[in-house]
Amino acid sequence: MLKEISKDNPAVLADYLQSRAQEISADILLKVTEILNDVRTNQDEACKKYTKQFDHQDIETFKVSPEELDAAIQQCDPAFCDAMRQAKKNIEYFHRAQVRQSYILQKEKGIYLGQRVLPLDSVGIYVPGGRAQYPSSVLMNAIPAHVAGVKRIVMVTPPDENGSIHPNIAFAAQLAGVTEIYKIGGAQAIAALAYGTQQIPAVDKIVGPGNIFVAAAKKLVYGKVDIDMIAGPSEILVVADEKANPRHAAADLLSQAEHDPMASAILLTTSRTVLDAVNDELKKQSVKLPKREIVEQSLANYGKAIVCDSIEECIHFANEIAPEHLELMIEDPMKYLGQVRHAGSVFMGYYTCESIGDYFGGTNHVLPTSGTARFSSALGVDSFIKTSCFLHYTEEALQAYGPQIMTMAKEEHLDAHANAVKVRMENE
Amino acid sequence: MLKEISKDNPAVLADYLQSRAQEISADILLKVTEILNDVRTNQDEACKKYTKQFDHQDIETFKVSPEELDAAIQQCDPAFCDAMRQAKKNIEYFHRAQVRQSYILQKEKGIYLGQRVLPLDSVGIYVPGGRAQYPSSVLMNAIPAHVAGVKRIVMVTPPDENGSIHPNIAFAAQLAGVTEIYKIGGAQAIAALAYGTQQIPAVDKIVGPGNIFVAAAKKLVYGKVDIDMIAGPSEILVVADEKANPRHAAADLLSQAEHDPMASAILLTTSRTVLDAVNDELKKQSVKLPKREIVEQSLANYGKAIVCDSIEECIHFANEIAPEHLELMIEDPMKYLGQVRHAGSVFMGYYTCESIGDYFGGTNHVLPTSGTARFSSALGVDSFIKTSCFLHYTEEALQAYGPQIMTMAKEEHLDAHANAVKVRMENE
Repeated sequence: MLKEISKDNPAVLADYLQSRAQEISADILLKVTEILNDVRTNQDEACKKYTKQFDHQDIETFKVSPEELDAAIQQCDPAFCDAMRQAKKNIEYFHRAQVRQSYILQKEKGIYLGQRVLPLDSVGIYVPGGRAQYPSSVLMNAIPAHVAGVKRIVMVTPPDENGSIHPNIAFAAQLAGVTEIYKIGGAQAIAALAYGTQQIPAVDKIVGPGNIFVAAAKKLVYGKVDIDMIAGPSEILVVADEKANPRHAAADLLSQAEHDPMASAILLTTSRTVLDAVNDELKKQSVKLPKREIVEQSLANYGKAIVCDSIEECIHFANEIAPEHLELMIEDPMKYLGQVRHAGSVFMGYYTCESIGDYFGGTNHVLPTSGTARFSSALGVDSFIKTSCFLHYTEEALQAYGPQIMTMAKEEHLDAHANAVKVRMENE
Repeated sequence: MLKEISKDNPAVLADYLQSRAQEISADILLKVTEILNDVRTNQDEACKKYTKQFDHQDIETFKVSPEELDAAIQQCDPAFCDAMRQAKKNIEYFHRAQVRQSYILQKEKGIYLGQRVLPLDSVGIYVPGGRAQYPSSVLMNAIPAHVAGVKRIVMVTPPDENGSIHPNIAFAAQLAGVTEIYKIGGAQAIAALAYGTQQIPAVDKIVGPGNIFVAAAKKLVYGKVDIDMIAGPSEILVVADEKANPRHAAADLLSQAEHDPMASAILLTTSRTVLDAVNDELKKQSVKLPKREIVEQSLANYGKAIVCDSIEECIHFANEIAPEHLELMIEDPMKYLGQVRHAGSVFMGYYTCESIGDYFGGTNHVLPTSGTARFSSALGVDSFIKTSCFLHYTEEALQAYGPQIMTMAKEEHLDAHANAVKVRMENE
């Protein structure tokens, strides 16, 4: 059941969304700092120790060999592999359009300046282990890096109870262009990627989801390397008009709720009839779900609804909330897209359920949570490039503009800055 | 004097650069957390209290009125204003080329998907007070925000000993398109921008340099709002061939050294004669500088040089260091630019001293420091936009690809994800 919030009190919604962000305790930070320092100093030896301690595996060689990779991939379901191949094509197609060009501007007196777009040299992708395995996440993280032109795309993932990696993860990695795979997880994997060890060379950026220890480690190594945003619990916001199918809307809300008892599912609708019918459907559908317990907790905690006077009003509240996923289950979604200012990803119309985008459509599923869609973006090619600018002045240009530059420098009392111009103007 | 490092031991360089990054002590974090919480709860009242305590000013109205702004601007030197106007044109020209377009891709069966590029709603620019005033920083932070299309561009700066703002800062703000100015500084200003007060509405992102309290406050509010990178001490790396003028090279190294005793100035050259001559020039020129003490400390601490066998080798070491500013004082800089993989901004040829870019050329002067040019970029239009993706599937497309999506969802044991597709395929 979705708890109804009066549209006269929408601040309640925004507040509770932000309150769901994960806090990392001092205890965990301390523990993780120890692991980071240990790996920094003792490298592979420390990695082996923690892999034994946390994953109960004796690993001598972290790198997955080509034979091991092939053997794992042999075990994958061919239908799954076909679906993944098509998903890869779609994801690549969408992300290729994000590729940007360097530019150069040529001006008077031989001046030129510009900006180069350069791929990062290397990135590390963290892929969680355990029973939950998400090969789709491997595609969403590795394909944009590959499209950006990153040469070293490293994947780390904890070994399972046989000291192996999951076949689906192995297949996804090969499909997405991962260049090296290491069987290591937890904070020790993040430390290895940040500082490098004898077996695991360091990378420039670390991306991918993980548990609270992984999140803490990423926060702590940020600065030494870059990281992606640390994701909070997942969110869906469905805007439904009176023609929306309540069964579909309910199924979509449940698809978010099954992730996590902290996940949030919100319905904004112009129709009380739709709201009531969605609530009926939630009851009916949730009992049939394997993750029923999680779903019920999540809906009880964070299932909300607002009945609005108009689609415009629904979108106004959606903008206040800035959801990770926004479904527009309305008749003419393109008419309203321009009003949507803050949303990680928008699913348009009655037939675009969020799961299409989670797996297959091509847009990225690594999205800003907890209201951060106000100022941040999905993972994409931009996440794996950097820009570097350049500037060229000739002697003629320096003579022409030098006096203005010196005026500005002197006004800031930076005489040495002015002097660098002066010695050239005087050609001393 | 630059301390020579053997080219057989370049790791020394990279290590010491990273070691210069500012650490924020637990003491400061605690103190700043208190201020943040106080402002969050008590809003303007707390802001007034801290402004009294730290800036010794009784401020009732933080917002600078149009009359106050005009009166301040009247005091500016007209030559300075002219130089600033030309600098603004150049900066705007460079940054306009960074503006990106939204895109849409149309596919089979009525599928379409794309990415919208949206400006942030609002940003706050921190501008330090005190004796050092840097109007050029106002241009470098505000112009890209303006070009990106940000509607609210807020500036905060501490009141001076008369309760006013510096005329040059006022002029720069007006010129660059700042929409609101508040006389408030320190951690309390960052808190006001992040949480909002009665007089100061909150923003979505905070940028701009500040002291250690401002840096700590920015770190702590990150997540609630976005922030720019927290800059470390400034760096220049000059690559000089045997034809480079040692007087010019020395002047450029000094222009960086005058910023801060922690600033770093490095010379990589193919000519020992040039190195010796640069050292002579450093001695000669530094004694004439008003900031001689700072310069001498900075050079003693962080002035380094390597004599290399070739320009390629110089650039190899430059890539290892990933400097904020890289000057290529060499004969054919464009020939070598492609080899430069990591540098915030590159200054090409004998006549492009860094100070041209600091003030006037058009490229941004807010650049990655401490080796972070390996993975991050200059401030620019990208810093003030976000992207939001969208996806549309028709019923026909869902029927065609639904089975593949369900296969992927089931392989991840996310049955509710599969179910959202199923209810639509069955059109229940």
